[in-house]
Amino acid sequence: MRGGAAELVTVTDEQRLAWVYLSRVVEGPCAPLSALIERVGVAEAARAVRKCDLPESLLGPTEKRRGIDRAERDLEVIGRLGGRVVTPDDPEWPAWRMLGLSQLEPARDAGAAVPLVLWVRGPLSLLESSEQALAVVGARCASGYGEHATAEIAGDLAARGWTIVSGAAFGIDGTAHRAALAAGGVTIAVLACGVDRPYPAQHERLLAEIAESGLVVSEYPPGTTARKHHFLARNRIIAALSEGVLVVEAGLRSGARNTVKWARRLGRPALAVPGPITSAASVGCHRMIREGEALLVSRAEEVVDEVGPLRLSLPGGTRPDPGAALQGDLAAVYAVLPAVGSRHPIDLARQAGLSLPAVRAALPALELAGLVGTDESGWYRIHRRCEEGGEV
Amino acid sequence: MRGGAAELVTVTDEQRLAWVYLSRVVEGPCAPLSALIERVGVAEAARAVRKCDLPESLLGPTEKRRGIDRAERDLEVIGRLGGRVVTPDDPEWPAWRMLGLSQLEPARDAGAAVPLVLWVRGPLSLLESSEQALAVVGARCASGYGEHATAEIAGDLAARGWTIVSGAAFGIDGTAHRAALAAGGVTIAVLACGVDRPYPAQHERLLAEIAESGLVVSEYPPGTTARKHHFLARNRIIAALSEGVLVVEAGLRSGARNTVKWARRLGRPALAVPGPITSAASVGCHRMIREGEALLVSRAEEVVDEVGPLRLSLPGGTRPDPGAALQGDLAAVYAVLPAVGSRHPIDLARQAGLSLPAVRAALPALELAGLVGTDESGWYRIHRRCEEGGEV
Repeated sequence: MRGGAAELVTVTDEQRLAWVYLSRVVEGPCAPLSALIERVGVAEAARAVRKCDLPESLLGPTEKRRGIDRAERDLEVIGRLGGRVVTPDDPEWPAWRMLGLSQLEPARDAGAAVPLVLWVRGPLSLLESSEQALAVVGARCASGYGEHATAEIAGDLAARGWTIVSGAAFGIDGTAHRAALAAGGVTIAVLACGVDRPYPAQHERLLAEIAESGLVVSEYPPGTTARKHHFLARNRIIAALSEGVLVVEAGLRSGARNTVKWARRLGRPALAVPGPITSAASVGCHRMIREGEALLVSRAEEVVDEVGPLRLSLPGGTRPDPGAALQGDLAAVYAVLPAVGSRHPIDLARQAGLSLPAVRAALPALELAGLVGTDESGWYRIHRRCEEGGEV
Repeated sequence: MRGGAAELVTVTDEQRLAWVYLSRVVEGPCAPLSALIERVGVAEAARAVRKCDLPESLLGPTEKRRGIDRAERDLEVIGRLGGRVVTPDDPEWPAWRMLGLSQLEPARDAGAAVPLVLWVRGPLSLLESSEQALAVVGARCASGYGEHATAEIAGDLAARGWTIVSGAAFGIDGTAHRAALAAGGVTIAVLACGVDRPYPAQHERLLAEIAESGLVVSEYPPGTTARKHHFLARNRIIAALSEGVLVVEAGLRSGARNTVKWARRLGRPALAVPGPITSAASVGCHRMIREGEALLVSRAEEVVDEVGPLRLSLPGGTRPDPGAALQGDLAAVYAVLPAVGSRHPIDLARQAGLSLPAVRAALPALELAGLVGTDESGWYRIHRRCEEGGEV
């Protein structure tokens, strides 16, 4: 499924080495560095970092490791693992999945930024395997009920061709990956450490299995150990690679809620599975449903009802969702407009997690783009034929 | 708690006998008869029925039993049971609870009508005990989990002074009554047969206990057996007597959903308790939550959050909820306007279960009444001080 060598020559060795060098310098998301690369290109940005010819905002983030240039060795290491580095210049880069991240305000979302590169192990194309993907996440301390529910729903979705994205943690994450593998489906594990490090250690074999038939992904270079803030940043990649996030069990203080928040910021639906009110492992799910942060689902069919309609695969690989071309607030507002019927700005604001002024600013822009219209009942999507949807 | 003999003389013997006679003639809700009584008074209506001097619409409903006049004997029977008949003329009649029913369209809601009278056993005032009341209903085939959840929540609410209204059926209903009794609280059982008949028979002792400290209520005269259509009509009384309806467990085809529909038509909140997705007894609750018919609740505090705020008891018995004076669509629309913030008509229609034209008709009427306002963000409630709220 991967793009062949012929395509990869579009990225020069110099560029690839620059991406890899920078990935190790900042170790994780770095919005000012992404902005610099956007402005001057990756090779020039790498030169600037090496020479410390940098804006104020980049002095801190690059200080510790700007002297470490082991990009060639890193590429050797990942190659020996049977892996690769995927850069934004590669055809395999899931650009349209990452668009939303590029438009979040870093000041508002700590760690918000497109990953510089993604380190990847596994035989599949990152682009294609994230085309129809759902995140399934939840409590590390899952109950037997939660693991059963995860196995049922994730297995069913994987069997229907949905890629299951998760974080390889104990509990719900691990069960979701295993269910996808058992169903002969595709699964992607996004790690908070290098893809060469089995984390948690007890999941070494599971991660090896995922790397054989699916993908193990990380924005951290090989050898990086998992740190606390890596997990929150990692969650944004899980959300970004997926069409929506399903939480099966979550306690009151759950990392899953953080993934749900990323999904909502990205304008993607959040879903949660209910459980007994007597179970502490379901308290977080119930709260998210009750507070309108997530929609209750009980079965794979209901999940597909919520995340499916806009992602019908078309022959030739074109996607009929005009909203996929959108970014930031525009994407978030468009995403919460219903497929049928209309909504009022205040409801859109609530659902998108945006302020009313932000929604009021986004709607006329969407209208100018011909994507939405308005009448006395509110704002609605303008549906075009698929043939016209090639503007992505 | 009941009004004393001094108050009861406001109802003449002739009127009381007329109510009782008519109650046996129609056995249950009869909108055309209610309309006739409204127009000519109960004594005159009874005379018209006896003489068969009736509009077309009343010939059928009165045909079978118009010749049976055993009103005096019925009063004797109910007296021997330690019970009484409560008529709309009695001070104990919960008039403001019944207002919503009187405004439903009978053509749209089969069986919609204010009950002619209520036959009552028990030491409490129907008016006072339904002042702060919640319906707790659910599956006959309840699971151990459902019974546990019911006992927890209903017991907790009863201990906080909420009257628990239910239907005395097996499963959730019976558990809810028992939880209220165990908490030393008040409970009302609304039956689909005469209050002299223990139904189900296995609940004879439970019903006797309820009649000792709470209330057993029915619109059917003593001796009436439970028929299938009685249960649906009975559900409207459960909903009408309550501030909201809580469903603990419900299968796909559950009577509880019918009670929820009545509550929604009356503009009262519907709440549902989630459970394991593996349990058939929770499927109906999950569907109601998922489809926005009911709000997920896990604890008594959450129930009070939803049904409590507008019903703060004030000294002197005045209620600060101006919406309680409303009827029919007006009540339904007002009830779904949020306490804070605004809504668009289309959202109000969805939430109130009304058509958009019905909502568009109701809003200007509410505006004229000074209860709501509108601006560019939608329609909102106008909040008045409690002192000004005496228009009920």
